[in-house]
Amino acid sequence: AEYQNEEWWKWTLSAIIGVVMGFVAFVVDGLVDKLNSFRFGMAMRLVVGDGENQDASKFYAYISSLFVTCCLAAVAGGLVSYVEPLAAGSGIPELKTYLNGVHLKGLLRLKTLLAKLGGVAFSIGAGLIAGKEGPFVHGGGLVGGGLCSFGSHSLGFKTRRPNHFRNDRDKRDFVAIGTATGVAVAFGAPIGGMLFTVEEGTSFYNSSMLWRGFLATCVGVLTSHWLEQLDFDATDFARAKFGTHRDFGLYTDDEANYSKQYWWYFWEVPIFAMIGCLGGYIGALFVNLNVRVTAWRAKYIPVNDKFRRFLEVIAVAALTFTVMFVFMAASPCLEIPAPLRDGHTNLANELDRFEYGEASKEEIRTDFFSKMYCPEGYYSSYGQLFFVPLSQSFKFLLHLGEVGENGQAHEFLFRFDLLVFYFLAMFSLMTVTYGVGAPTGLFVPSLAVGSAMGQICGRIVNSVSGWILTDVQIDLHAYAVIGAAASLGGATRMTISITVLVMETTGSMQLIIPLMLTIFCAKAVGDRFSHGIYDTHIKIRGAPFLEEPELAGPAGDKLRVNEVMAKTMITIKPRMRVRDLIGILASNDHGAFPVTENPPTKPGEPFELHGTITRNRLLKMITHRIGFFDGNPESRPADVYGYTTAKDRDDLLDKLKQIPFKSPHVAEVAASLSSVEMDSAWIDVSRLMQRHPFITHADARVSRAYRIFRTMGLRHLYVTPDKPLVVGVMTRKDVIQENTSLTLGEKAERIMAER
Amino acid sequence: AEYQNEEWWKWTLSAIIGVVMGFVAFVVDGLVDKLNSFRFGMAMRLVVGDGENQDASKFYAYISSLFVTCCLAAVAGGLVSYVEPLAAGSGIPELKTYLNGVHLKGLLRLKTLLAKLGGVAFSIGAGLIAGKEGPFVHGGGLVGGGLCSFGSHSLGFKTRRPNHFRNDRDKRDFVAIGTATGVAVAFGAPIGGMLFTVEEGTSFYNSSMLWRGFLATCVGVLTSHWLEQLDFDATDFARAKFGTHRDFGLYTDDEANYSKQYWWYFWEVPIFAMIGCLGGYIGALFVNLNVRVTAWRAKYIPVNDKFRRFLEVIAVAALTFTVMFVFMAASPCLEIPAPLRDGHTNLANELDRFEYGEASKEEIRTDFFSKMYCPEGYYSSYGQLFFVPLSQSFKFLLHLGEVGENGQAHEFLFRFDLLVFYFLAMFSLMTVTYGVGAPTGLFVPSLAVGSAMGQICGRIVNSVSGWILTDVQIDLHAYAVIGAAASLGGATRMTISITVLVMETTGSMQLIIPLMLTIFCAKAVGDRFSHGIYDTHIKIRGAPFLEEPELAGPAGDKLRVNEVMAKTMITIKPRMRVRDLIGILASNDHGAFPVTENPPTKPGEPFELHGTITRNRLLKMITHRIGFFDGNPESRPADVYGYTTAKDRDDLLDKLKQIPFKSPHVAEVAASLSSVEMDSAWIDVSRLMQRHPFITHADARVSRAYRIFRTMGLRHLYVTPDKPLVVGVMTRKDVIQENTSLTLGEKAERIMAER
Repeated sequence: AEYQNEEWWKWTLSAIIGVVMGFVAFVVDGLVDKLNSFRFGMAMRLVVGDGENQDASKFYAYISSLFVTCCLAAVAGGLVSYVEPLAAGSGIPELKTYLNGVHLKGLLRLKTLLAKLGGVAFSIGAGLIAGKEGPFVHGGGLVGGGLCSFGSHSLGFKTRRPNHFRNDRDKRDFVAIGTATGVAVAFGAPIGGMLFTVEEGTSFYNSSMLWRGFLATCVGVLTSHWLEQLDFDATDFARAKFGTHRDFGLYTDDEANYSKQYWWYFWEVPIFAMIGCLGGYIGALFVNLNVRVTAWRAKYIPVNDKFRRFLEVIAVAALTFTVMFVFMAASPCLEIPAPLRDGHTNLANELDRFEYGEASKEEIRTDFFSKMYCPEGYYSSYGQLFFVPLSQSFKFLLHLGEVGENGQAHEFLFRFDLLVFYFLAMFSLMTVTYGVGAPTGLFVPSLAVGSAMGQICGRIVNSVSGWILTDVQIDLHAYAVIGAAASLGGATRMTISITVLVMETTGSMQLIIPLMLTIFCAKAVGDRFSHGIYDTHIKIRGAPFLEEPELAGPAGDKLRVNEVMAKTMITIKPRMRVRDLIGILASNDHGAFPVTENPPTKPGEPFELHGTITRNRLLKMITHRIGFFDGNPESRPADVYGYTTAKDRDDLLDKLKQIPFKSPHVAEVAASLSSVEMDSAWIDVSRLMQRHPFITHADARVSRAYRIFRTMGLRHLYVTPDKPLVVGVMTRKDVIQENTSLTLGEKAERIMAER
Repeated sequence: AEYQNEEWWKWTLSAIIGVVMGFVAFVVDGLVDKLNSFRFGMAMRLVVGDGENQDASKFYAYISSLFVTCCLAAVAGGLVSYVEPLAAGSGIPELKTYLNGVHLKGLLRLKTLLAKLGGVAFSIGAGLIAGKEGPFVHGGGLVGGGLCSFGSHSLGFKTRRPNHFRNDRDKRDFVAIGTATGVAVAFGAPIGGMLFTVEEGTSFYNSSMLWRGFLATCVGVLTSHWLEQLDFDATDFARAKFGTHRDFGLYTDDEANYSKQYWWYFWEVPIFAMIGCLGGYIGALFVNLNVRVTAWRAKYIPVNDKFRRFLEVIAVAALTFTVMFVFMAASPCLEIPAPLRDGHTNLANELDRFEYGEASKEEIRTDFFSKMYCPEGYYSSYGQLFFVPLSQSFKFLLHLGEVGENGQAHEFLFRFDLLVFYFLAMFSLMTVTYGVGAPTGLFVPSLAVGSAMGQICGRIVNSVSGWILTDVQIDLHAYAVIGAAASLGGATRMTISITVLVMETTGSMQLIIPLMLTIFCAKAVGDRFSHGIYDTHIKIRGAPFLEEPELAGPAGDKLRVNEVMAKTMITIKPRMRVRDLIGILASNDHGAFPVTENPPTKPGEPFELHGTITRNRLLKMITHRIGFFDGNPESRPADVYGYTTAKDRDDLLDKLKQIPFKSPHVAEVAASLSSVEMDSAWIDVSRLMQRHPFITHADARVSRAYRIFRTMGLRHLYVTPDKPLVVGVMTRKDVIQENTSLTLGEKAERIMAER
């Protein structure tokens, strides 16, 4: 019954995660929209409203908008610097670290959630080159983890007795599901969201789990659609048609006409591959430049200098706004496209495929072809891309330049120099912005930069192909999509999930094969020059992220475990003098030590393994004087044997947490001990060691050991002799639900009887 | 260098698998088309061509067409019965068994490939209620496995020295990739194909593997598109636009207009869920009926009675044709829809959304509204669905009944009674056909049945909703898609892969969330009544398929391995009298035995584990007198110690293969031994036992043991004492590529030096 109950709860909880994330997405999106329209609305009124006395007005418009920008940036920066430092950045490196088995203190707190999601709305509102997707990933993880803890507390799944090595896999599962849902609601892409977590978190190890994740992502996307529809027109809800909402699409859902919009020719395949390679180069360049920026930042704007970090956010926002304003103000003016001019009668037909619907020409002109500082009847060519929110300019790049099916309608093409300027400016700003002390996602900036790159490539191909195949019209916005995917792939080195994410969000199902090829090339090229941006940042932080070296081929099958293992081990005893322990720690740099009463006298001699303990934990124990006692064989150190409440246990575990990741040096720790302690104190590690490390057979193939390392996320694997002693055997029967429940019931009865 | 080389080869091979499967799909599709148009063309000429003397002509048409049908069926049946029995059925159960770790002899032979793929063309050509998808899965596996073996032979990756437990994981990987590619090319669905193998094969355990699979599926789909385009119009290849080919779509690729075609309302969500439940019921009914049919078949048409099995195929084909012909002949006649009538001027607009393009009304009428036995100006209502190839009628169900966006155009609605008849007839025929001695896939039949079910439900909902929301127009072909997914989900119990497959093939991206919900319900309901059809057939065959019981929750974390393990084990010695061994085998029904020189004297006492050997292998050894010797301590039985060539080894392993799955009974085996053998023969199992079984720590949590069982695909797991002896430790460093290659190099040098 308990199992049934819990299983049911797991499914329900997955659906609840979806619902909550749907709400969160709706609220944050709404806030972003409000802030964007506030800031740009104000700026636009100042720019367009006053035609006379242009120069003074320009300066006034610039200063006032800059002030608003800085205020918004101050909120974003303040939330990070003064509320929760972990809310900075995209959160994907942290989540990835967590899902790979390393706990970060405070990563999953409610305060972090609020600071992150509130902050990202202000980051985007302030015009930072940032997207909401990364923070949504983090937010999803927080919601998943939070709901899971709530569930396990309130429904009593938590083990009552304190237990040092409580398996937190369940929680991790829910964090993974939440992460997937976060991606899904951010992009409106349920499959892509799930694949993102599969690829980055490597956490969905069975299909039931995968299926629960899918439930959560679908419910999340569904909820956010419904809320948007309710917000849009609640009275007509029963008549509202639903389809996949596409965040990056220019059009609303059910009016979209996507399958007419993408096409490609067989000879474009190598071109797409080259765009992929280009994306890989640019991604690697971005990573390497960003590493330098980060190094500079670590030196002059350290994380603990809150005020400088706060100021930096404002400075970056001001810089970004200045760049955008200057481009807008210096923009050449272009004539409004013919179909949009007053007096042009053919509006309906020409713009049919844009599906602007009932909107008047006036509205379309204001929304999409704003005149800004241009004379009447003209629009600001640079302003169209530079002086709009980032996600908007990305949409324009994907769709506005498009060419009709019969090759007409080049009216909406962007100027080539605009594309180049946009690409260069956004790439530079993105490089500077990533890592700033505000919540910032990388996806949208990278996609926008890439789509500009794709458009540039497409225009070149168009000119060249025009000489050879005169009657062939290539699809420029297919190039924009391909370029966007190449750029994101080059920066993050994700593969399958990006393919699907881009496909789902742009609706470019027809492009799946070119997309896949492009991203493949981007990853292959990028990996030659750098790691992905997330892995790079994980490394910079020094988190013990488990890289996944590829082991394959003959070596794994031809070698036995006992041919590659280390035979010489440095062991420690369960209870020993602190002085001796420090001596051992100082004598080597091993990361973990086997614990045994009778150490082997020579390498390769079998010894009894009582457990294993990491260097970090030993140092923490010494630092906090945990498990210290007087050396009397009868003593049991009270701090590790005597606590009774869960709080005591949590306090103890708190002290032992792997924060910061880098262990203190043993010399520092030793220096903190008084000479009395050094001389007389003993330490008992037996309660805090891992008492059942993974073991494998000496005769097994290395490939098996590799699989155990991979699937169990290990750092050490102990090796038995080649004819190991065994005491029992388990079959599948022993692990199926009914049997274990039965055994558990018996055990509970036995414990009750003993009391 | 060897590693680099091999890695490169793995990627290349994946791409080659894609190319080959693309070719295969193109060829088989072409053959199916040819056979279909031959058979239906002939029948149509007989039916339509001669208007006079109807009754005689009907009989003549029936008999002649039946003859052709039976001839085609005879080819399909003959290929199975007289060429390769393993070509029967869909092949998915066999592949699933293989991917889960059980080798079936002959499953991966070239002969099987030809019989399967040639056979399925004739099965479909003969009008059996069958699809090509299952056989394509098998075909893909064959191609993957075949190319892999070829590669490993020709590039010298094969280990030179005979090795009993050679890890064939590499081969399995390629079979999995091939399987995914098979699904992908059959459906034109690269993501769905990959997810199919992830879900059914549980074989993609890392993202590099996943990525290679994706490469293969994409290349496969790409190749088949290009070939089709070349076949269609080679001269215009450079100008051909490519998009996702949709096998189930009614339209050609780039003309399609899908996003206008599917929509849904929020209140339809519970209705979709109910359709899912219905699909689950119907799927379970199908499975249970099919089990009875299979039992009946096993009794009266055993697999080894080739002739009866051959006749059955012909009989089923004749029955199917008769049903279809009778419905067609008895069909009510309906007037041709107004826009298609001669003299109707508005053709272009009305049919715009069908994109028939240049086709004349005459052609459209012949192709889609055939008059058959109806008078001029009318078309055969039943014949439209019954007297066309199955995949064609499925397309009609998905698209022909569609309602325009503004609710007009009910002209193309099917008659309600036709839908019901079609559903019942196809369901019955599908139940009878699955398991017949010809290559038959289940996907298309199940989808067709389901889409009829969906249309029926949609029509009912339409009537009801018409009373309440008069101005709301539901989307009938969204119901057809949902119904199709529900039916397939109910029959196969796949989840994610069906969602994506259906989405990709119908282009119904908008329906992903309803689809997911529907399939979720279908699986949940279906699982209450039966296993999936594939698992059921795997069980019927008695293959040792590893069911995946769900272990979760408190029991796994609260129990230790030593609380659930079996402490009493029956051990055998490495060398023992045959008589004693038979005694042990007869005394219990354990599936495997630990091998040790010194058996424990009481339960739970540690003993040295030399290895483990299965009952099946022991029985095979006794049956074939393998490892027999005279009991002299110095003797080494030559058959297991003495062979020198790879062929000797292969012959030996062949004898030990797990075919048939069910072990012979020990009494039978014992009876085959002469009394001399019984008295004096000894057996040496030490060379043929598994020498390094998986082991775990007695103190570990049961949840860990469960994960090891799951991820390593084990049946037994040995348990060490709670303070096990160890001789070494491995770290991640020891398993990364560079280090193992180095060690391997040293080992090779050492071996050379010793010679």
